[in-house]
Amino acid sequence: MNTLGYAILGLIDKNKITGYDLTKIFNDSVADFWSAKQSQIYTELKKLVDAALIEYEVVIQGEVLEKKVYSITTKGKEELNTWMHEDEPPLSQSKDVFKLRLYFSEQLTSQELCGKFEKQLEKCQLLLTRYTIKFNEYDSTVISAAKIGDYLLLKGAIAHLRTQIEWINESLVYIKK
Amino acid sequence: MNTLGYAILGLIDKNKITGYDLTKIFNDSVADFWSAKQSQIYTELKKLVDAALIEYEVVIQGEVLEKKVYSITTKGKEELNTWMHEDEPPLSQSKDVFKLRLYFSEQLTSQELCGKFEKQLEKCQLLLTRYTIKFNEYDSTVISAAKIGDYLLLKGAIAHLRTQIEWINESLVYIKK
Repeated sequence: MNTLGYAILGLIDKNKITGYDLTKIFNDSVADFWSAKQSQIYTELKKLVDAALIEYEVVIQGEVLEKKVYSITTKGKEELNTWMHEDEPPLSQSKDVFKLRLYFSEQLTSQELCGKFEKQLEKCQLLLTRYTIKFNEYDSTVISAAKIGDYLLLKGAIAHLRTQIEWINESLVYIKK
Repeated sequence: MNTLGYAILGLIDKNKITGYDLTKIFNDSVADFWSAKQSQIYTELKKLVDAALIEYEVVIQGEVLEKKVYSITTKGKEELNTWMHEDEPPLSQSKDVFKLRLYFSEQLTSQELCGKFEKQLEKCQLLLTRYTIKFNEYDSTVISAAKIGDYLLLKGAIAHLRTQIEWINESLVYIKK
């Protein structure tokens, strides 16, 4: 099974959920450390059902809309548990087009390079604002076990973005000099 | 063309190179922001040759060993230039199994979670040492245009690892309390 399958399994284990809501969580909370397209998520859900790791019930919403609500099976819980205890792969599997282009910066003028850094800065600042708002909703003294991961990840993401912003600003100074 | 193709194109544009040396660069300098398996690199090289973006000459090494030395074509240079000037995709496409498992931390005991953080800490410290050695080889006052990207990326990677290490240590304190 691929990692996306385990990510979905873990999310379904947290709560019974529809494919639609699962996709929303991927775009929101999980996007910082695991990305997936909607089509991939639906493909994976089908595989997980076929492997009997999850099951679903069809719920009628309103007059006509049917939706599948997925829940994890005992076999799924075992599979998730085994994966959770495995060792992590080596560091640095990230794919970052901005950094890749920076590595080839001799292809660009200083001005073009600064333009790329400034756009990146803007994106980081926007994301930092979003994460900070989310983080401020937490009261660090009362966090449930199910939320500790989310809380620590947000803290890490904020620290990472601040470092990134500082680095971009320093780089801009370096390039312009 | 996929991003790996452009990464290879950019590297070949820096210097004429063999597939073997290309793979070494991927495992070393580029790994921090773009990962690729050897088989993927060779597949992509073939595609780039077929598309006339790169070409190769066969060089005889020693008595029997033939190796292909790749260089970029004019068409390849144009293609690389176009790609370099494109806008970057949205932030955060990274895939991080450690963070994904942390998001599901309710599946683990505090002790198991600390164990995962400690292993991660070790990996970060090792990589930080490696990068710091590399960084110290630079004299920041005399860096050629072709090396500015590499220099700034290393600086960024070091800052990121330091932040990561601090975050892991704070998280360990938080979990143990």
